[in-house]
Amino acid sequence: MNREMRELKGRLSEIHDLESAAALLQWDQATYMPPGGGPARARQLGTLRRLAHEKFTDPAVGALLERLAPQASGLPYDSDEASLIRVVRRDYERAVRIPAEFMARFQAHQAESYEAWARARPANDFAAVRPCLEKTLELSLELAGFFPGGAHPADALIDFVDPDTTVAVARALFADLRARLVPLVRAIASQPPADDACLRQSFPESDQLRFGTEVAGRFGYDFERGRIDKTRHPFMTSFSIGDVRITMRAREDDLGDALFSILHETGHALYGQGARRELEELPLAEGTSSGVHESQSRLWENVVGRSRAFWSFFYPRLQEVFPAQLGNVPREAFYRAINKVEPSLIRTDADEVTYNLHVMMRFDFELALLEGRLAVRDLPEAWRERVRADFGIAPADDRDGVLQDVHWYAGQIGGMFQGYTLGNILSAQFFQAALRAHPRIPEEIAQGVFSTLHGWLIENIYQHGRKYRPAELIERATGSPLTIEPYLGYLRGKYSGLYDLALGAPARAE
Amino acid sequence: MNREMRELKGRLSEIHDLESAAALLQWDQATYMPPGGGPARARQLGTLRRLAHEKFTDPAVGALLERLAPQASGLPYDSDEASLIRVVRRDYERAVRIPAEFMARFQAHQAESYEAWARARPANDFAAVRPCLEKTLELSLELAGFFPGGAHPADALIDFVDPDTTVAVARALFADLRARLVPLVRAIASQPPADDACLRQSFPESDQLRFGTEVAGRFGYDFERGRIDKTRHPFMTSFSIGDVRITMRAREDDLGDALFSILHETGHALYGQGARRELEELPLAEGTSSGVHESQSRLWENVVGRSRAFWSFFYPRLQEVFPAQLGNVPREAFYRAINKVEPSLIRTDADEVTYNLHVMMRFDFELALLEGRLAVRDLPEAWRERVRADFGIAPADDRDGVLQDVHWYAGQIGGMFQGYTLGNILSAQFFQAALRAHPRIPEEIAQGVFSTLHGWLIENIYQHGRKYRPAELIERATGSPLTIEPYLGYLRGKYSGLYDLALGAPARAE
Repeated sequence: MNREMRELKGRLSEIHDLESAAALLQWDQATYMPPGGGPARARQLGTLRRLAHEKFTDPAVGALLERLAPQASGLPYDSDEASLIRVVRRDYERAVRIPAEFMARFQAHQAESYEAWARARPANDFAAVRPCLEKTLELSLELAGFFPGGAHPADALIDFVDPDTTVAVARALFADLRARLVPLVRAIASQPPADDACLRQSFPESDQLRFGTEVAGRFGYDFERGRIDKTRHPFMTSFSIGDVRITMRAREDDLGDALFSILHETGHALYGQGARRELEELPLAEGTSSGVHESQSRLWENVVGRSRAFWSFFYPRLQEVFPAQLGNVPREAFYRAINKVEPSLIRTDADEVTYNLHVMMRFDFELALLEGRLAVRDLPEAWRERVRADFGIAPADDRDGVLQDVHWYAGQIGGMFQGYTLGNILSAQFFQAALRAHPRIPEEIAQGVFSTLHGWLIENIYQHGRKYRPAELIERATGSPLTIEPYLGYLRGKYSGLYDLALGAPARAE
Repeated sequence: MNREMRELKGRLSEIHDLESAAALLQWDQATYMPPGGGPARARQLGTLRRLAHEKFTDPAVGALLERLAPQASGLPYDSDEASLIRVVRRDYERAVRIPAEFMARFQAHQAESYEAWARARPANDFAAVRPCLEKTLELSLELAGFFPGGAHPADALIDFVDPDTTVAVARALFADLRARLVPLVRAIASQPPADDACLRQSFPESDQLRFGTEVAGRFGYDFERGRIDKTRHPFMTSFSIGDVRITMRAREDDLGDALFSILHETGHALYGQGARRELEELPLAEGTSSGVHESQSRLWENVVGRSRAFWSFFYPRLQEVFPAQLGNVPREAFYRAINKVEPSLIRTDADEVTYNLHVMMRFDFELALLEGRLAVRDLPEAWRERVRADFGIAPADDRDGVLQDVHWYAGQIGGMFQGYTLGNILSAQFFQAALRAHPRIPEEIAQGVFSTLHGWLIENIYQHGRKYRPAELIERATGSPLTIEPYLGYLRGKYSGLYDLALGAPARAE
């Protein structure tokens, strides 16, 4: 490794340390921090992120990248060093457009806004966070404004997390998906509803956590390099490849809430733990995009965790943990309960079929807010109307409406939601590719064995970190560009086995 | 506030943010971090502390202090701004002597050494940490070497934490105290031993925590600005005046362990929470010295927490929490159990009377190691010999010997222990002064009311942070310099009431 490369890596590693420290401050804020710590924490996060940004946008970094560019072109495209130069150069060119002063202001606002939301949501008090959210919209537009030339202000914001996906691309994709999902939702809605009363009993939190921990461990989550803590809104975060944590939230009256959120975050964590050690401390040791990250959480949560094969192994174990609650519930009844499709108010509780309608609603609101077609003050009512139109159910209060997701309150408006639907689509596309390579995967899952699937995902996705752009990674791993067909095939196959649907799909094909 | 002062405060606040982030990383390492996070955490701490050090030793800070010096001399001595300039100038002149490169190396070593100790102690494996400790000794001497001119290499190391106390001062003070403690220990040893079997039953950890939390809250510890977590070696840490945390360790077979360590750390935390809000984010918002800090932990743990008055209120409550274990144990028997004096192996478990012998032993070892009179490889044996000589008991294994304290493994050799005995001495001196001002304090304690005592401590000690040097603070608060007389009077009075001692002190005078 030559001197320039060493210097670049040294600088990147220092920046990574600052960012990891900031991530820990944020994890702490969401798990253990006492309320009195809030104001100082906001300042501290602002300082760390500002310093990281200042150090990354130092012209010396740009000069190093310039000098290293000719070397990179002589190296194999997928070598660590060529990839590092390519990815960091793209990050650098984006970062230098954002003033450090703006970053500090934005991060401080986000921390304050998160605290305000954490108070306002239980109190159902949108008015209390409205000024925060209005400022977030302003700041989101200011951020987008540093990247002029896009067809839509959201293009730049989406590009931060889902490169290769513009507003135009997402709109077309989502319109296509929506056109084919809505008939499926309607066909299911015309059937007698599934009975999920078995999930709405009393399940002690500690037992839920114990079972979730067992499943996460079997999936391959390494607890020597991770842990699970309680929070309001579950998330995965990473401070190094050796320390990738998830958080959970349990409801004693709803078995599904904690269980599937643990499986979901475990999927993210497997991606985080699966990066090659050589990428440690470098900007390559992360997921390549929000959509690909979400594909892993949804693959483990839904494609695996809500499958018949999975529960043929785990249901007897779950019954052992909750004998009084589930001892007399047949496995098939439980399987139908966890796959019940019904219009609902909460995105994270939604079934696989209606889930994307929640996402598309939020995506559309982001565009409308950024375009000025919708004002923040009108958002609660717009939300209620859209819930009525899409789901045909009574408007929620704001707690279960516009206040339900943390994203706009701890982040920005724009680019926050498209990744969820991209992830759903990709979860099926990746799983289909893994099955092509290893047709015995479903039988292994039915034995509680996940190593072949986990191994294929490490090999084709996790180990690479951010080395490949999402479009490259998808093409390499699955042999085709992103496509909604495997996902629709998966949904049709699964739900025509659960409901009596005249969809022309093979019955009970799952 | 003029431009220079604003700029100084801005710089100090940024440095404080980096240090607070480092403190959180360390808290996390000692509480929740999974083992795999260790190596990256060491690097991250090294980076944060190096950046803080680089920023503080920036010549621009020196230039600002120069320019502000004339202004300071025109302000009242105890004004916030004059104090800030005075204290920061002293810190600056010390910090610029330590190269940033050394600091990073030292901090990284300390984090690694802590991890090695955490593995070695349960395994009773001194050999595994010996190389670490040898390097720590080298680094401690290197650090002391940046401050030539002291009469002893430990002078500089002690000065970091206990200004006003040189090796010569401490040696004289400790010799005096030792000469008067040893007869007391011998007189007690000649009496029948107290029975503390009531403390060695089975006490569920969660109940211990619940009771400790109740007491801490009554003392005045604000849980909106703090919390208690589990760790191996209890400590207090602070990330802002609004976030001052303590940690605890419980043993189910020993009621005293968790209880008195919670009261101890609560004492530290009351000091941390008691600083004036105006000092937030500045280097003034900390304790003025290790000895004064320790005086607060010992005051609340011992002078208050092991007194008859305290337990006349709290013992019925403790019996409610542990009815099966303590329901039939009379209060006086319990009081005698928690004040049992006996030679022991573990410093943190030691009674008030023998405790200082543990401290003086470590202090002497630090001096011997730094002077080269003792080699690290001979330390375990030297430890065993000294335990035999001072306490007349069988040598411990290394787990309860040289491996028992975290200090040398996470810190340095030199300056780590004198504060404990200074703290014991001062705990009695401060309490005596508070009693002079408010003679009703003992009656209030017997009612479970601590606000007068807490208020006096806030007024005279806590609110000032580091504004006054320890010697100034002691003189202002108590009207005299540090003196061992109140402490000896306290011990003689209390223990002649517990044991039948011919010491000439008034019986049951406590």
